[in-house]
Amino acid sequence: MSVFAVVMAGGSGTRFWPLSRRALPKQLLALGGDTHESLIRATVRRIAPIVPPERVLVVTAASLAARVRQELPEVPAQNVLAEPAARNTAPCVGWAAQVAKARDPEAVLAVLAADHYVKDEDAYRTAVRRALAVAEDGTLVTIGITPTRAETGYGYLELGEELSPGVRRVARFVEKPDVARASAMVADGKHLWNSGTFFFRADAVLAEIAAHLPALADGLAAIALEPARLGEIFGALPRVSLDVGVMEKAARIAVLPGDFGWSDVGSFATAWELSAKDTTQNAVPPDAVIVDSKRCLVRTTPGKIVALIGVEDLVVIDTDDALLVVPRDRAQDVRAVVDALTARGSEEKL
Amino acid sequence: MSVFAVVMAGGSGTRFWPLSRRALPKQLLALGGDTHESLIRATVRRIAPIVPPERVLVVTAASLAARVRQELPEVPAQNVLAEPAARNTAPCVGWAAQVAKARDPEAVLAVLAADHYVKDEDAYRTAVRRALAVAEDGTLVTIGITPTRAETGYGYLELGEELSPGVRRVARFVEKPDVARASAMVADGKHLWNSGTFFFRADAVLAEIAAHLPALADGLAAIALEPARLGEIFGALPRVSLDVGVMEKAARIAVLPGDFGWSDVGSFATAWELSAKDTTQNAVPPDAVIVDSKRCLVRTTPGKIVALIGVEDLVVIDTDDALLVVPRDRAQDVRAVVDALTARGSEEKL
Repeated sequence: MSVFAVVMAGGSGTRFWPLSRRALPKQLLALGGDTHESLIRATVRRIAPIVPPERVLVVTAASLAARVRQELPEVPAQNVLAEPAARNTAPCVGWAAQVAKARDPEAVLAVLAADHYVKDEDAYRTAVRRALAVAEDGTLVTIGITPTRAETGYGYLELGEELSPGVRRVARFVEKPDVARASAMVADGKHLWNSGTFFFRADAVLAEIAAHLPALADGLAAIALEPARLGEIFGALPRVSLDVGVMEKAARIAVLPGDFGWSDVGSFATAWELSAKDTTQNAVPPDAVIVDSKRCLVRTTPGKIVALIGVEDLVVIDTDDALLVVPRDRAQDVRAVVDALTARGSEEKL
Repeated sequence: MSVFAVVMAGGSGTRFWPLSRRALPKQLLALGGDTHESLIRATVRRIAPIVPPERVLVVTAASLAARVRQELPEVPAQNVLAEPAARNTAPCVGWAAQVAKARDPEAVLAVLAADHYVKDEDAYRTAVRRALAVAEDGTLVTIGITPTRAETGYGYLELGEELSPGVRRVARFVEKPDVARASAMVADGKHLWNSGTFFFRADAVLAEIAAHLPALADGLAAIALEPARLGEIFGALPRVSLDVGVMEKAARIAVLPGDFGWSDVGSFATAWELSAKDTTQNAVPPDAVIVDSKRCLVRTTPGKIVALIGVEDLVVIDTDDALLVVPRDRAQDVRAVVDALTARGSEEKL
């Protein structure tokens, strides 16, 4: 039995414009505190003590494959699976499971997002090792994050009965809640954040796909038979997430609690939280001139000097061809700018 | 009798950093509403119907002379007088008066700042023509600006008795006042803003210099005798302003009121006021993406797109090598950044 990591790197997030672009989405940016290491590099490095690069499969958009291979030179080029079309996560994971199973019929998968942040990597790996051990018998496993606030930006997992010491059944998947519902779930101690991180044997998840998503199972079988027709077949696969298409329908999902400083790095506000900050809580270039300014996030291009006077809680993102200014508490609205640029056809800025 | 314009262009203002630099001070920037015409070009163009370019004398720092000549190609190169050292405005005007008098012993001078803004140029020229007419008999004349607000950033002129219809004596020069004093002066109708704009015969101002600043008169005489020793002699001239050294000491200064939308363009806050603005009062590049943002001034480099979300009354100045963010009401504090950069020896950013 060998463990494969499946790194899902198909995202095209718009909340980090102008740092993120269609050709350089969030997972390729250094947003997790370290201003040099991209989120996807951190993902692969973090799991490396458990999964060596030759068993890391990265599933990404065809348009990003070359850039992803460049970013992860230690991962064999053929391990970067280029999706001919974006079909959400169920086809992505199904395809990777099929590839892994072909290499090792006993393969166990750790399905990881390419664009999340983990603060305590030792605690993370301890949780991953426990989840993989639980998955060995064919159980579908997820890690739920112990909530630290009434976050409305995440989905939640409701805990069911104990399956083994420290392992509970997922009673229910809960969509992103409103504030009242989020507060109640954090208070009752029966809910964890859904981190979107999954562990299962390749044959186990493929069996669940066959049971709940037969069209996807047929498509995957067709791809195995006629790999040359990948583009045509993949584009016709059902567009469905692993959560909705498989996990919520499976009879038994096990969940282990995780508490390792996890974040999905949802916006520039989160990037500020994760960044190294000076005594005035500014995350700015080291040579910045700061006058009466607090709690700002500033990114600019090398060699450029930043000066802030009398501003607080502001995000300023400066790239070669774009400049964004937004208060931290409106960082979610960055997508409105992307929408506006899309509407006016400013392709070169997207 | 011919009229010469003396354009004082020695300023090295720091309140427009990072647009302004030692090598590109305020007068060379387009800050007067039109984003293409520099303040010094506007100064020369504005006076052109009265003073042709061949009688425009520009006094500037030696380090700026080449750039000024490039900016004003219609002005003969030898009319750009390069000061070997900065000695304030009395030596500057004395030297220019001497140069003008050598060309025409009857010369009348219009002494103008290179970095001011005028909205109503016809009204301006009407006032200038009237002032020049008054100056013909040897009177020292200034134009005082009818105040429109209790401005504490300007000096004031207290009006004395009437010398001729519409022409008053300057009873007193008033330094920049506090708010209470400024309000009182605006209310009493007996005060005008000191625009630093002067009109006098070259021989008249040189006679006043001889009377009140004999060391300067001696220095100017020495320069006329030995032009090759300009650098040495000029550097030893007394450092004194025309206001303090001559105008405040002269027996009789006449003042004419002017009301033509004048500004000394003192900070980015003023630059915003003078700029063309959209319906949300933003002065931003025409292709900017504006979401819930008002009353901002943004300057950036060509080809770069600006996006503002949820910000108000903010100044954002983006150049190739520097980025400044400051609320409009703190625009005066930009010099603190220049001080900080000077203190750390960042010469290339100054």
